[in-house]
Amino acid sequence: MSEAAETLDGWYSLHNFRSIDWAGWRALPGAEREAAIEEFQQFLKKLEAIQNEHEGAYALYTITGQKADFVLWTLRPALEDLEKIETAFNKLKIADYTIPAYSYVAVVELSNYVRGGKADENAYENPQVRERLYPTLPKSKYFCFYPMDKRRQGDDNWYMLPMEKRRELMKSHGMIGRKYAGKVKQYILGSTGLDDYEWGVTLLSDDALQFKKIVYEMRFDEASARYGEFGSFYVGSLLDEEKLKSLLHIG
Amino acid sequence: MSEAAETLDGWYSLHNFRSIDWAGWRALPGAEREAAIEEFQQFLKKLEAIQNEHEGAYALYTITGQKADFVLWTLRPALEDLEKIETAFNKLKIADYTIPAYSYVAVVELSNYVRGGKADENAYENPQVRERLYPTLPKSKYFCFYPMDKRRQGDDNWYMLPMEKRRELMKSHGMIGRKYAGKVKQYILGSTGLDDYEWGVTLLSDDALQFKKIVYEMRFDEASARYGEFGSFYVGSLLDEEKLKSLLHIG
Amino acid sequence: MSEAAETLDGWYSLHNFRSIDWAGWRALPGAEREAAIEEFQQFLKKLEAIQNEHEGAYALYTITGQKADFVLWTLRPALEDLEKIETAFNKLKIADYTIPAYSYVAVVELSNYVRGGKADENAYENPQVRERLYPTLPKSKYFCFYPMDKRRQGDDNWYMLPMEKRRELMKSHGMIGRKYAGKVKQYILGSTGLDDYEWGVTLLSDDALQFKKIVYEMRFDEASARYGEFGSFYVGSLLDEEKLKSLLHIG
Amino acid sequence: MSEAAETLDGWYSLHNFRSIDWAGWRALPGAEREAAIEEFQQFLKKLEAIQNEHEGAYALYTITGQKADFVLWTLRPALEDLEKIETAFNKLKIADYTIPAYSYVAVVELSNYVRGGKADENAYENPQVRERLYPTLPKSKYFCFYPMDKRRQGDDNWYMLPMEKRRELMKSHGMIGRKYAGKVKQYILGSTGLDDYEWGVTLLSDDALQFKKIVYEMRFDEASARYGEFGSFYVGSLLDEEKLKSLLHIG
Amino acid sequence: MSEAAETLDGWYSLHNFRSIDWAGWRALPGAEREAAIEEFQQFLKKLEAIQNEHEGAYALYTITGQKADFVLWTLRPALEDLEKIETAFNKLKIADYTIPAYSYVAVVELSNYVRGGKADENAYENPQVRERLYPTLPKSKYFCFYPMDKRRQGDDNWYMLPMEKRRELMKSHGMIGRKYAGKVKQYILGSTGLDDYEWGVTLLSDDALQFKKIVYEMRFDEASARYGEFGSFYVGSLLDEEKLKSLLHIG
Repeated sequence: MSEAAETLDGWYSLHNFRSIDWAGWRALPGAEREAAIEEFQQFLKKLEAIQNEHEGAYALYTITGQKADFVLWTLRPALEDLEKIETAFNKLKIADYTIPAYSYVAVVELSNYVRGGKADENAYENPQVRERLYPTLPKSKYFCFYPMDKRRQGDDNWYMLPMEKRRELMKSHGMIGRKYAGKVKQYILGSTGLDDYEWGVTLLSDDALQFKKIVYEMRFDEASARYGEFGSFYVGSLLDEEKLKSLLHIG
Repeated sequence: MSEAAETLDGWYSLHNFRSIDWAGWRALPGAEREAAIEEFQQFLKKLEAIQNEHEGAYALYTITGQKADFVLWTLRPALEDLEKIETAFNKLKIADYTIPAYSYVAVVELSNYVRGGKADENAYENPQVRERLYPTLPKSKYFCFYPMDKRRQGDDNWYMLPMEKRRELMKSHGMIGRKYAGKVKQYILGSTGLDDYEWGVTLLSDDALQFKKIVYEMRFDEASARYGEFGSFYVGSLLDEEKLKSLLHIG
Repeated sequence: MSEAAETLDGWYSLHNFRSIDWAGWRALPGAEREAAIEEFQQFLKKLEAIQNEHEGAYALYTITGQKADFVLWTLRPALEDLEKIETAFNKLKIADYTIPAYSYVAVVELSNYVRGGKADENAYENPQVRERLYPTLPKSKYFCFYPMDKRRQGDDNWYMLPMEKRRELMKSHGMIGRKYAGKVKQYILGSTGLDDYEWGVTLLSDDALQFKKIVYEMRFDEASARYGEFGSFYVGSLLDEEKLKSLLHIG
Repeated sequence: MSEAAETLDGWYSLHNFRSIDWAGWRALPGAEREAAIEEFQQFLKKLEAIQNEHEGAYALYTITGQKADFVLWTLRPALEDLEKIETAFNKLKIADYTIPAYSYVAVVELSNYVRGGKADENAYENPQVRERLYPTLPKSKYFCFYPMDKRRQGDDNWYMLPMEKRRELMKSHGMIGRKYAGKVKQYILGSTGLDDYEWGVTLLSDDALQFKKIVYEMRFDEASARYGEFGSFYVGSLLDEEKLKSLLHIG
Repeated sequence: MSEAAETLDGWYSLHNFRSIDWAGWRALPGAEREAAIEEFQQFLKKLEAIQNEHEGAYALYTITGQKADFVLWTLRPALEDLEKIETAFNKLKIADYTIPAYSYVAVVELSNYVRGGKADENAYENPQVRERLYPTLPKSKYFCFYPMDKRRQGDDNWYMLPMEKRRELMKSHGMIGRKYAGKVKQYILGSTGLDDYEWGVTLLSDDALQFKKIVYEMRFDEASARYGEFGSFYVGSLLDEEKLKSLLHIG
């Protein structure tokens, strides 16, 4: 058996992708629509307040194309905290005019390949590590999410590789990531045993083109080229208060 | 032909995953909602009573994310007992406000790799074995379910391996499981010939992170790394009486 | 080119899996429900009468879990006979409260590997062969259906094997089947050119556990281990007149 | 690069598979149903007239099982001619009571492997070739359609084979087809660049069992065994005027 | 690690495929239908005006078969510009009578294999390059779209090939493309990190048969034969003002 890489684990994470039922929303009387928007904004303000207390984090982005209309991403200390937010959303008036599109359950994760694959429990006290495990999300302009697996197929079996080889591959992979420091923020979410892929990756950037550049460049790296299996990609742009009003406004 | 591993088989098992039709549920007059919740609780009390008689078992958990809102897991001596529960649920008022999301049919199973792959029919009299085949389910805080196959692909064909090799791989696999004793309860459900995968696995724990840790660590074990094929993962938290009321309450 | 195995072909077969629209069915006034049940039972009596004349066969079973609520399996001399039954069912009142779940079109088939792969046209006069090609279906307690292919993948390509090798593999496979004689009745349905898999298999038994045992044991046999590709499995229990009433009864 | 086989291309082809919304159709007042049937028959008579002028062709068949209730197959000189028929069908009253089930866009194709892989442009003047590229469809009793690809997988890569090898394989494949002359009519439809598979195949026969026999026999031929990838199979029977009335009649 | 090919990136691209809800559209009173058509045409005129200013581009085509009824393809400088168009469409009256069918998010891309795989930033000043990155779309008669990946499977792993080999393969591939100059216009859209495949390809031509010819010929080229993975193909014809009226007209 290959040695498993230990991980540091932070907040639980839920991506909740929703599509808008435009015909239903249009058919709703204007006053009810306004009330629903107002109620949704109050809900978002509560998420904002919790983020300000650093007891969790959240982000709201549109999704371009038909996969969804928006994503509400929330981070919390416990799985049931995420369910509470999910249920609270489901009970909003506006939820009746949205359709579930996709969701992803995971935990913010730091792997320890750089430190010999061993988790250092003291690391949880390290402020830099804490900021990565319990992040404050920036209001970047663009969002990208995709789930991924490490391949286990014939000769390309990540989980049969010795630790040393995996460390080397991850190091090379991390070097590409570092080239994009300042351009793209990466959030690695571990989801083995929690959702259908082994990881979810969220990227935030002020330049949407960087999503294409970083993922494409990494694809030539052996860690992705031979060992990466990718699910669907979701991209969109920041849905702040003004843009939310504009999105939901019916003229 | 490779020698088949014999199994010990216990109760039949049905996982019934359901999503809530929130818009419909919200639109229902409050008194009808209350009556539907009350009727659902009476139904659950009957399942509880049967569990108390040890004539079956059941568990009710939320599911985090959009795959489902809750799962009702029932165990019974005969397949048609499960159908009766399924039909009784379908005839509840609340069922009209839920949508089928996923289900899994299986039998609690103990394999006999440790005893040379041969089932010892006397084992059915062994109290420890009986407790595993006809389990009393603990009210653990968290739930995880996933179906899985053993791979039959090119050089990675579990079913073409000699018994001795499979026994060795399963032994190593079992060792990892044992490391999690006290942290994670594992229920192995055989479903070859009954549902789409060969096994279903239910994990219960008081710490959701342990689901990620055990499944991730096992993935590096050859039995999973080379021979495991996994379906979707469903996780959630205990839905006790109070939480059920809170979940279904419309303010 | 490998030599194709010739087959003996009997009745055409249609498995019609349906889910019940419980909310709609509950909403129907009681008298209309009763009339719909009565009409459905008259329809089933006609199928029974034709079976009694041995001009066809039929079976009605529940399906456990969410894949379907019941399956109506019919066998007839011609493809259009099956369509007539399908259309007659679709025009029943009860059909409006059922939803198509899955179907399978095939022909009862006997392969001739044991006789050197050559079909003996006189075989059609053999009463034992006739009973298998034009079967009377027993009212067994349990039902199992699954479609399957023989694999054509890399080195595991059934259709590139010489006839002699295929004969040997099928013989070994048949030996396992014979072990279950008296416990499990197997109906092999050829569907190459008719439906999405190459075969459909229906198993009937008075012990549902035998489905798991026979399919699991066969999976270790090279014919399945290297060459079998399986679709979804559907299991359930006999839906006789009394149980049908009970299933459709709304209290 | 391997040399591409040139093709002769005839009429554009659209298979339009539809399911009937039986509950909606039943709910329609009888007079409206009659009007809708009459309107549909007038539509079909126009297709028949165009076929009689040999400016196109069409066929109408039931589909057995739940994949669809019927297929309207039309052939025309230009892609937009097919769209006109599709739109005209969509605007019929009866279309409101049918549900899209599957469709396939292609061009009638003759490959030229027998002539060294080179298309002879004069061939378009050859009456036998013309009859195949612009066919008059017989009113055969049974219909079968399936899409297919030539495999490109590891060592089984059709498109990497030299022309000579492909010619040899196609010749052997054609020999099987010729054995079924008089029993099964084959229409090869090229769809690379037009729909999801590279070819669609329509078979017509007065004996539905021949579909199973020809496809099964071909599967042992190397061209299929190693290089064929098949989609779903759709089978059914001729839907002439009388049978159409009977199908749509509500008693 | 293999060296990644650098790219030149132009406008963002959104393909918005929609199906028409014919029953709903037929049921709408004639005057409301006329108003909805008029409103849609005003919307299209705005897109036309922006195209005339060369601040973006758009195309409207029917889709043959059931995959969709039409596609609105828009190109813009920023991702959120595409979302604005998408949202504006969703708020049109006619949108209530269309159903999302498929969408694709990408960026117009020029790869630089011919120039040693290095992007020349000055290229953005080159008028010929600019015309390709920020294209004016011709009103060609026919449309074809498909997404594609470069394969990473066993020995056929594009991303593990050395740059020199990839350059050679792309050169050969480009030669085929050049044979179709004047017949088929190709638009290569990079979507790694943006949508589910790595590229989307849109072809425009005045002869629909050329789509089949170019894609089929390319499939024999090693770049496609060994390394191409293709998604669904969507074809259709130009939907100009007159044809749009005719399509949406209910007699």
